[in-house]
Amino acid sequence: MDVSRRIERGLERAVSYATATGRPPQLCEAVRYTLFPGGARVRPRLCLSVALACGDANPAAADAAATAIELLHNASLVHDDMPCFDDAGLRRGKLSVHAAFGEPIALLTGDVLIVMAFETVARECMLAPDRIAPLMAIIGRAVGMPHGIVAGQAWESETDIPLEEYHRAKTASLFTGAACAGAIATGSDPQPWLMVGDRLGAAYQVADDLRDVLSAHEEIGKPSGQDLQHGRPNAVAKYGLAGAVSHLQGLVEGAIEAIPDCPGAESLRQLIGNEVKRLVPKNLARTAA
Amino acid sequence: MDVSRRIERGLERAVSYATATGRPPQLCEAVRYTLFPGGARVRPRLCLSVALACGDANPAAADAAATAIELLHNASLVHDDMPCFDDAGLRRGKLSVHAAFGEPIALLTGDVLIVMAFETVARECMLAPDRIAPLMAIIGRAVGMPHGIVAGQAWESETDIPLEEYHRAKTASLFTGAACAGAIATGSDPQPWLMVGDRLGAAYQVADDLRDVLSAHEEIGKPSGQDLQHGRPNAVAKYGLAGAVSHLQGLVEGAIEAIPDCPGAESLRQLIGNEVKRLVPKNLARTAA
Repeated sequence: MDVSRRIERGLERAVSYATATGRPPQLCEAVRYTLFPGGARVRPRLCLSVALACGDANPAAADAAATAIELLHNASLVHDDMPCFDDAGLRRGKLSVHAAFGEPIALLTGDVLIVMAFETVARECMLAPDRIAPLMAIIGRAVGMPHGIVAGQAWESETDIPLEEYHRAKTASLFTGAACAGAIATGSDPQPWLMVGDRLGAAYQVADDLRDVLSAHEEIGKPSGQDLQHGRPNAVAKYGLAGAVSHLQGLVEGAIEAIPDCPGAESLRQLIGNEVKRLVPKNLARTAA
Repeated sequence: MDVSRRIERGLERAVSYATATGRPPQLCEAVRYTLFPGGARVRPRLCLSVALACGDANPAAADAAATAIELLHNASLVHDDMPCFDDAGLRRGKLSVHAAFGEPIALLTGDVLIVMAFETVARECMLAPDRIAPLMAIIGRAVGMPHGIVAGQAWESETDIPLEEYHRAKTASLFTGAACAGAIATGSDPQPWLMVGDRLGAAYQVADDLRDVLSAHEEIGKPSGQDLQHGRPNAVAKYGLAGAVSHLQGLVEGAIEAIPDCPGAESLRQLIGNEVKRLVPKNLARTAA
């Protein structure tokens, strides 16, 4: 089964457990609305790609980790779109969750997606109980305090924002968590994968900053220029356009170099090389060409 | 070490892990502000009391479960107080988290408390890995979908609210989770404790409804009459004052009767008998006397 099918199946399974009774109706509908159809599923693909590169000795644990990572990513999107943060009315070309269901259901949707993530790991790893604690620990670190995505979002409430720490927490942490969780699921040492995830996450953040500045509303399905509008740090503002593109390329090369010796190292290198093409906005590809 | 000290120590430990770096500053401060000083710590006391009644064979796992339950309870309070739900400016006699720190930090505080709960179980049960999956599962069920506190809160967004299902999810679920987690931590069968937790949770909900109707602002430290104000179901409205008090007493007796045969059954019966006195608001004790 290919990676995309494994991801969708894992998410469907998690949602089935949560919404089987159909109650309460709006929350069930909002959870499904949030997750399907999905975005690029970048983080769970990274998680499963690392697991495959490491031999994929425990596919159920890898699928659980990938599912948890994507559930947590979606939780952060739902909460970040809310009026007290970005106040974004659109996400992936449709109404954001609070715009479609109201703020109370949006807040609860984010909450329950976090719970579902940890429930998924506990439930799906019942037959590999030695994986549960390290998976929970690495995933918790990626989303919580002091270095996870919640901490990253909280930096936006500070007046003095440390750019690198902010980006690493807000974006790179979940990439690092995804890569390390993929290794842990197979019983491999996660340590060498920290650097791979961290660099890919940083590259993704730069790409997102580029998209924020350059992309038209229609292309990315959400209002552009959010960083400027909300006074947030942005790599293009810091490095300039050419500098940001060059920085992104350097980060991806660094990620590829950091891939440790493992059964599927070569195909993972190719995969990341191809994957990165998705990161460059069409507008920019034309600009840079 | 007595139960209260174990609870405070467990919470302090969880907060230390999350806030050791002091970053990001406001989120660290808000997490500590939310948890200390605490309320009555009813749910973690139930969890530890059940663990003690079952022999407390694994105190670290019991402490982890009690800590997780209290972190999740506080997460729900922070989010429920927010403007899109109760819009409560006070909690436990001081400013609610969003009133003190703003909505963004309040939302993130609730999120990170959920993450911390699951991280705590994973971290503190490293030496008892067979406890982790069942503890995570029972705790997840108590807070998630379809029957946990998030689902309970989501019923408030529906037009047709099933009173019993709503109360069971919104309040009783975490009592049930606390009681069952206490048993699971010791390696005991959680099944008999479902009924104990469920009845105590229902009793607590009736007591809360009574307090909502009767108590003066000063006594409970938050605005009273929230249910009426928000059009929520309330047991006093349903049963009348005398009927609600009698219902509460019946539920507590039912909880005591449901305590299964275990080493500390007798002292747990006495504890619950004493505990219930906390549940009756002072105003009502005078009214009923």
